[in-house]
Amino acid sequence: MSKSKMGDPDNSNNNSNSNSNSNSNARSGPAAEHCVDIVHTVVPPPHRSGLQRLGNRLKETFFPDDPLRQFKGQSPARKWVIGAQYIFPILEWGPHYNLRLFKSDVVAGLTIASLAIPQGISYAKLANLPPIVGLYSSFVPPLVYAVLGSSRDLAVGPVSIASLILGSMLRQEVSPLKDPILFLQLAFTSTFFAGLFQASLGFLRLGLIIDFLSKATLIGFMAGAAIIVSLQQLKGLLGITHFTKQMGLLPVLTSVFHHTHEWSWQTILMGFCFLLFLLITRHISIRKPKLFWISAGAPLASVILSTILVFALKADGHGISTIGKLQQGLNPPSWNMLRFQHSHLPLVIKTGLVTGIISLTEGIAVGRTFAAIKDYRVDGNKEMIAIGLMNVLGSFTSCYVTTGAFSRSAVNHNAGAKTAVSNIIMSVTIMVTLLFLMPLFQYTPNLVLAAIIVTAVIGLIDVPAAYAIWKVDKFDFVVMLCAFFGVILISVQHGLAIAVGISIFKIILQITRPKTVMLGNIPGTDIYRNLDHYKDAMGVRGFLILGIEAPVNFANATYLNERILRWIEEYEAEDDVKKEGGGLQFVVLELSAVSGIDTSGVLLFKDLRRALEKKDVELVLVNPLGEVLEKLQKADENGEILRPNNVYLTVGEAVASLSATVKGQCSTTI
Amino acid sequence: MSKSKMGDPDNSNNNSNSNSNSNSNARSGPAAEHCVDIVHTVVPPPHRSGLQRLGNRLKETFFPDDPLRQFKGQSPARKWVIGAQYIFPILEWGPHYNLRLFKSDVVAGLTIASLAIPQGISYAKLANLPPIVGLYSSFVPPLVYAVLGSSRDLAVGPVSIASLILGSMLRQEVSPLKDPILFLQLAFTSTFFAGLFQASLGFLRLGLIIDFLSKATLIGFMAGAAIIVSLQQLKGLLGITHFTKQMGLLPVLTSVFHHTHEWSWQTILMGFCFLLFLLITRHISIRKPKLFWISAGAPLASVILSTILVFALKADGHGISTIGKLQQGLNPPSWNMLRFQHSHLPLVIKTGLVTGIISLTEGIAVGRTFAAIKDYRVDGNKEMIAIGLMNVLGSFTSCYVTTGAFSRSAVNHNAGAKTAVSNIIMSVTIMVTLLFLMPLFQYTPNLVLAAIIVTAVIGLIDVPAAYAIWKVDKFDFVVMLCAFFGVILISVQHGLAIAVGISIFKIILQITRPKTVMLGNIPGTDIYRNLDHYKDAMGVRGFLILGIEAPVNFANATYLNERILRWIEEYEAEDDVKKEGGGLQFVVLELSAVSGIDTSGVLLFKDLRRALEKKDVELVLVNPLGEVLEKLQKADENGEILRPNNVYLTVGEAVASLSATVKGQCSTTI
Repeated sequence: MSKSKMGDPDNSNNNSNSNSNSNSNARSGPAAEHCVDIVHTVVPPPHRSGLQRLGNRLKETFFPDDPLRQFKGQSPARKWVIGAQYIFPILEWGPHYNLRLFKSDVVAGLTIASLAIPQGISYAKLANLPPIVGLYSSFVPPLVYAVLGSSRDLAVGPVSIASLILGSMLRQEVSPLKDPILFLQLAFTSTFFAGLFQASLGFLRLGLIIDFLSKATLIGFMAGAAIIVSLQQLKGLLGITHFTKQMGLLPVLTSVFHHTHEWSWQTILMGFCFLLFLLITRHISIRKPKLFWISAGAPLASVILSTILVFALKADGHGISTIGKLQQGLNPPSWNMLRFQHSHLPLVIKTGLVTGIISLTEGIAVGRTFAAIKDYRVDGNKEMIAIGLMNVLGSFTSCYVTTGAFSRSAVNHNAGAKTAVSNIIMSVTIMVTLLFLMPLFQYTPNLVLAAIIVTAVIGLIDVPAAYAIWKVDKFDFVVMLCAFFGVILISVQHGLAIAVGISIFKIILQITRPKTVMLGNIPGTDIYRNLDHYKDAMGVRGFLILGIEAPVNFANATYLNERILRWIEEYEAEDDVKKEGGGLQFVVLELSAVSGIDTSGVLLFKDLRRALEKKDVELVLVNPLGEVLEKLQKADENGEILRPNNVYLTVGEAVASLSATVKGQCSTTI
Repeated sequence: MSKSKMGDPDNSNNNSNSNSNSNSNARSGPAAEHCVDIVHTVVPPPHRSGLQRLGNRLKETFFPDDPLRQFKGQSPARKWVIGAQYIFPILEWGPHYNLRLFKSDVVAGLTIASLAIPQGISYAKLANLPPIVGLYSSFVPPLVYAVLGSSRDLAVGPVSIASLILGSMLRQEVSPLKDPILFLQLAFTSTFFAGLFQASLGFLRLGLIIDFLSKATLIGFMAGAAIIVSLQQLKGLLGITHFTKQMGLLPVLTSVFHHTHEWSWQTILMGFCFLLFLLITRHISIRKPKLFWISAGAPLASVILSTILVFALKADGHGISTIGKLQQGLNPPSWNMLRFQHSHLPLVIKTGLVTGIISLTEGIAVGRTFAAIKDYRVDGNKEMIAIGLMNVLGSFTSCYVTTGAFSRSAVNHNAGAKTAVSNIIMSVTIMVTLLFLMPLFQYTPNLVLAAIIVTAVIGLIDVPAAYAIWKVDKFDFVVMLCAFFGVILISVQHGLAIAVGISIFKIILQITRPKTVMLGNIPGTDIYRNLDHYKDAMGVRGFLILGIEAPVNFANATYLNERILRWIEEYEAEDDVKKEGGGLQFVVLELSAVSGIDTSGVLLFKDLRRALEKKDVELVLVNPLGEVLEKLQKADENGEILRPNNVYLTVGEAVASLSATVKGQCSTTI
């Protein structure tokens, strides 16, 4: 096959080796003297065994970052060091750590701690957990991440969406009010499974799973979740005591307006004042990023101010509910609270999976965003292992699901964090809080926590991004709407599942119905492009030149067969009308975009060849890629598909060479 | 954007309009005088509204055959005729029917009737239904198909695999021995749903669903099913009375060897004699296709011979079980037996779906195979409607699932069938049998039915095809093995589901991890090809030219980002080693194979552009296709992605033009 071209090989070799002034256009220049000898041979790719090819494929699929590259050519001792640094990134940057970096990190650490304390308490309440669990979860996981994580900007702790999902999924089976201990046990066990699942994805290098949450899906999902979360806060902001346990838009609104007699004007007044205050500070920081500390400090300021107000006015006796007494001291161990032999095991595993994927997606997206800004790289699989182990260890020490939070990491970045030490500073600050400051929170009103949550999640509703999606891709916009309405009308998990399902369906549909386009020659060149797109391109008489724009496989072989035959029928019908005569002589398939083929795809070419033979039309293949060429050769024992004179490297060469052959003579100009 | 190239537009227009002798090579010829003015502009495709584009996409997806094409430019009366012919193909060929065709069809019809009678009885037993239902099912459906079907060779009736699946799925919940009436009702209701489902697929033009059963899946599945079916026949061939109700390999073999005391030597002797006879006749017909009538007539001959033997020897008293009395008369109505308000409804719908898809796949594959041989076309969606309506009407007249059977259609074709009239002849013959000949079957032994089934299904094990798959595509071979072992070790439905799941997973994996290849210049030409494949291709200094071989979407944007950055790192590392200096200046992405893009894909280009800017490297796009170009333009408000001088029509032009720009001067030769 490798020398299937008609041209004299010596001659064409000479030509190839001549200087670059020689002409690639088959229809002019010195080439004309040699009569189509400048046709370039399509050669099979260099031989590789099946095992080599499998290895290569697996490597490209699971190790696109080639993690062993840095070990090449290093001494054994150095290899150990690199290995340890690979597992514990702190060993890489730790030795170069200095006072200047430390100063920056202290400022950033204290800033995010002031945000983490009120957010931790609020998010724990969102997850139906005791408020103190939110503080516990801001103490241990940041320490673990500081050792294992590779991002310099990620601020670790509980996040709103994972808290919401954890709380709402567990509440389907267990009531946090009636059975708080069991609920807590299930939360820790779910956290354990979430971490296990996240770390496994990293170890097995299956990070590709989170790629299936597209940008459009996430925008719709986050906006929906933000609305659901905000609606839940109406309980705290309005002071309702008998609130619905459901999450959907309709049940919550029904519940709100069926309990108007429970609305407390003191709560409403104070709550909306603080909400307004927080929203204004947020707005200021968005307008002037240098003033980030205003929005970063506002939640803590609100907590302090509201606590003093409640204490001074003794407002807790006047319808304003407060957090109440919190236990002093560090995280108690919780490995004895993990429940594996339990009737709720399926629920716990499912909750772990969903919260694990969601929080992983957030954590990695945040890490990548800030790495791109500061121009360093985070390794997705390593991050998964870090976040996973952090959650597993967290589940042993009374923490629930944590990850890198977007809002807090942005504050961290703006406050000048240089390394993961800012997480350690935050963690130490929270330790101090846990040890000494817990009694101060006794009079903190719930309404301020609700206001903090609303302010935090309102930023998840990204209208400009939604508009940009509408402008660029209508289908993506539909996916986004499905995620959004799925979340607010059905449930958080179902909305997500529907959006992912539709996205995957679209990919499969694209593969099942690939585009075939008719190519034409751009006058005065050797270039062949889509006739529909390039209006000055012109068809070549006697040739039907089709580009296939997808891998050919079982899912589209039948379709392609029918579609190509229809192209031919249409060509012939048009030819009849024009009475040009001559008719169709060659069907040229340009295969540059056919990146793969399977056995059904190979059959397509055999079937086409046979169908065309009956019409006395020749099938010509142009630029089959390595894999395609190999498989066609293997399947082509009788030389049915690949014959001399029907495989070319470019459409231009195919047309030039075949035109010359038809005329039965060399033509100096055509 | 449309004039983003640096060249003087007038000049380049002149050049485009000049005769085809003009030179497309940027580096030589008259072009050199004008200093890279032969760069061709990448223009956006002609404007189409969102609705037009959606319409076009839907048409290509669901109406690839453009069924309305034939109506164009016809008179209203003629349109009605064409419409009626479209729905009832018999109106198309009926008027031209003549005596010559009729003679051929009578011969073929009688031949397939002689096969259909014993097969009908046998397959009904395989489905755990009364034998006579098999004859009923060979009477009504062929008549319906003759009116509606578009294939000239399809011989309609019950088939082995659909019978097996129907019987085994229903037996999971209802015993055909203990509750035969209910079982029959469920079988008819399943048939109704199968037909409804098939017809709906046709009406909704969702024929693409059956494309998901790849050749490899089908080969593995059919071989597995053939073994399962054959194992079931051990009951009849060995004369075992207490046979297992399970279908798997292990339970059946266990059952066979646990009941050795039930083996009847008379049955075994007679059974294997007939099996040998049938296999030999089959072998002869395979060797000499002209002797097709030997294998076509052998089953009926065996039935007659064995019936006479049993009757003459009174062998039914000696351990040889017979069919027993069959009711005389035509199909009784059965619409009153369809049960919709029943606890078994989910089972019945599931059974209808699975048998519907499987029988549709067989029917359409058979129709297409023979249509390709005789060079006519069958319309997949029309066939689905025909087969679907045939099953719906069948379920009203005591028939169970039928389709076009491969073995019987092959006999029909070989016997010289010209039109669907052969189905009518077969149907009439079976009518005569039902009316007058039923008592003759009373002494037909079950063993001969078992032998007929084994002979029929043994042909489904296609070892050469399996070997061909192994040779061409190892992954397809694995899919085939999964289907095969899934069927024989787990269950028929699960084996199928596993194989389809793996096939789809492969497609998704291909999309998630697309290939990126480094391109190089083939010396002496303008052609750029994969450096790994074409060993004489050479890289261009300062340029990294990458081809992306898949649509860019949410599932692979992150991967592509990381992979492309790694290509760049590797290029720079190699560059350092070689100390060539100069370093990387341009990353050229050849997008000819990127057939689509979504919002995540657009972001990839923005991110890449930003990452490269930090390294002072320019991102260049080559040949973005229509859709890609449009979306990039829409998303590119700030001109971040598409800038003058970074979109080219071919790699050659990009390299030539950019090299010239860098040198800051025109170069007559490079």
